Amino acid sequence: MTDGRLARGQRTKNIVLDTAVGLATEAGLDGLTLSQLADRLGVSKSGLFAHWRSKEELQLATIERAREQFAELVAAPALKAPRGVRRLWALHEAKLAYIQHVELPGGCFFTNTQFEYDARVGPIRDRLAEVLTEWLRLIQRLATEAVDNGELHAGTDAQALAFELNAYATEAVHQSKLMPDLDVLALSRAVALRRLRALCTDPSLLPKE
Amino acid sequence: MTDGRLARGQRTKNIVLDTAVGLATEAGLDGLTLSQLADRLGVSKSGLFAHWRSKEELQLATIERAREQFAELVAAPALKAPRGVRRLWALHEAKLAYIQHVELPGGCFFTNTQFEYDARVGPIRDRLAEVLTEWLRLIQRLATEAVDNGELHAGTDAQALAFELNAYATEAVHQSKLMPDLDVLALSRAVALRRLRALCTDPSLLPKE
Repeated sequence: MTDGRLARGQRTKNIVLDTAVGLATEAGLDGLTLSQLADRLGVSKSGLFAHWRSKEELQLATIERAREQFAELVAAPALKAPRGVRRLWALHEAKLAYIQHVELPGGCFFTNTQFEYDARVGPIRDRLAEVLTEWLRLIQRLATEAVDNGELHAGTDAQALAFELNAYATEAVHQSKLMPDLDVLALSRAVALRRLRALCTDPSLLPKE
Repeated sequence: MTDGRLARGQRTKNIVLDTAVGLATEAGLDGLTLSQLADRLGVSKSGLFAHWRSKEELQLATIERAREQFAELVAAPALKAPRGVRRLWALHEAKLAYIQHVELPGGCFFTNTQFEYDARVGPIRDRLAEVLTEWLRLIQRLATEAVDNGELHAGTDAQALAFELNAYATEAVHQSKLMPDLDVLALSRAVALRRLRALCTDPSLLPKE
């Protein structure tokens, strides 16, 4: 019974934090307040205050929830694709789908908040930097695996390729809301796919377009 | 004499706005307040209030000042390079130098504020979207000129190339403050240069590295 209550409590917390993640993509992580979150959810501020005793606690919990969502929606499905260039491409496509996720009105939670906090100091900036490092290492690891199994040309610079792929996704977030008339996500996808096909020893492993 | 006073008034305003541009790269454009700016400059808030009657007026004036700085520091010097791939590369190098400009603690003013405002509505978001459109059109125009004069391979997609080059610069802003141990600006520069050299009919027009 206690376990059931704990599970329900965690589910409730996650529902609240999902809303916080979405709000932060609009108003910024610094713009996230307990009162605004309470308004959005139609609950009392004191109810939320029982879970998070300060704005910073709420912000850090929101980052962890966004990281869980990202792992579930982006990393986990991509890791089911066969190791090599198909897994690398699956990761990129999953990231582009995440950017368009309906519950994130401002696009990728991490890209937005990393830009917001990059010139600040403190635990929020530090945690966002760790998550970025972890993400870039994952792309680079999958790129290295694709070089190692011969699907990307020998001599492909995995660090540079990870930088490029992430740059195409970041730029899609950058432009997509400001220039809604352009189909920037399609352009970003096409650029990344052409780049990978050019480096691939067997382009038939990848979609044509 | 009146002209002299007007010129001095404009110079004073520009000094204040230069500080506002730098502050906005740290705390965000929304984090820019008349009192914070007055504190930083060691002047009274009422003195500033005489020039800008609201936070939004100050924010819009800060955007225009940042646009002037960008035109002086990035576009103008690049346009002195010979038309074609050298001008396109000069524009990219000038943008990378601007990102490291000592008076912009958070890196590029526009990249930061465009991420901040992309999911909002109103005149600030609209002006930032216009400036981004203008910038992407400039890169694309220089890329088209380089295709037209035969320095980039015929069939090079100028719109896609403009997207790629801007993506490499945006990603440098994204990573450079969060991952200070990595020399991300050098990586970003190397990736862009390799990309342009691969598309160039005469790579000797470009630096080797």
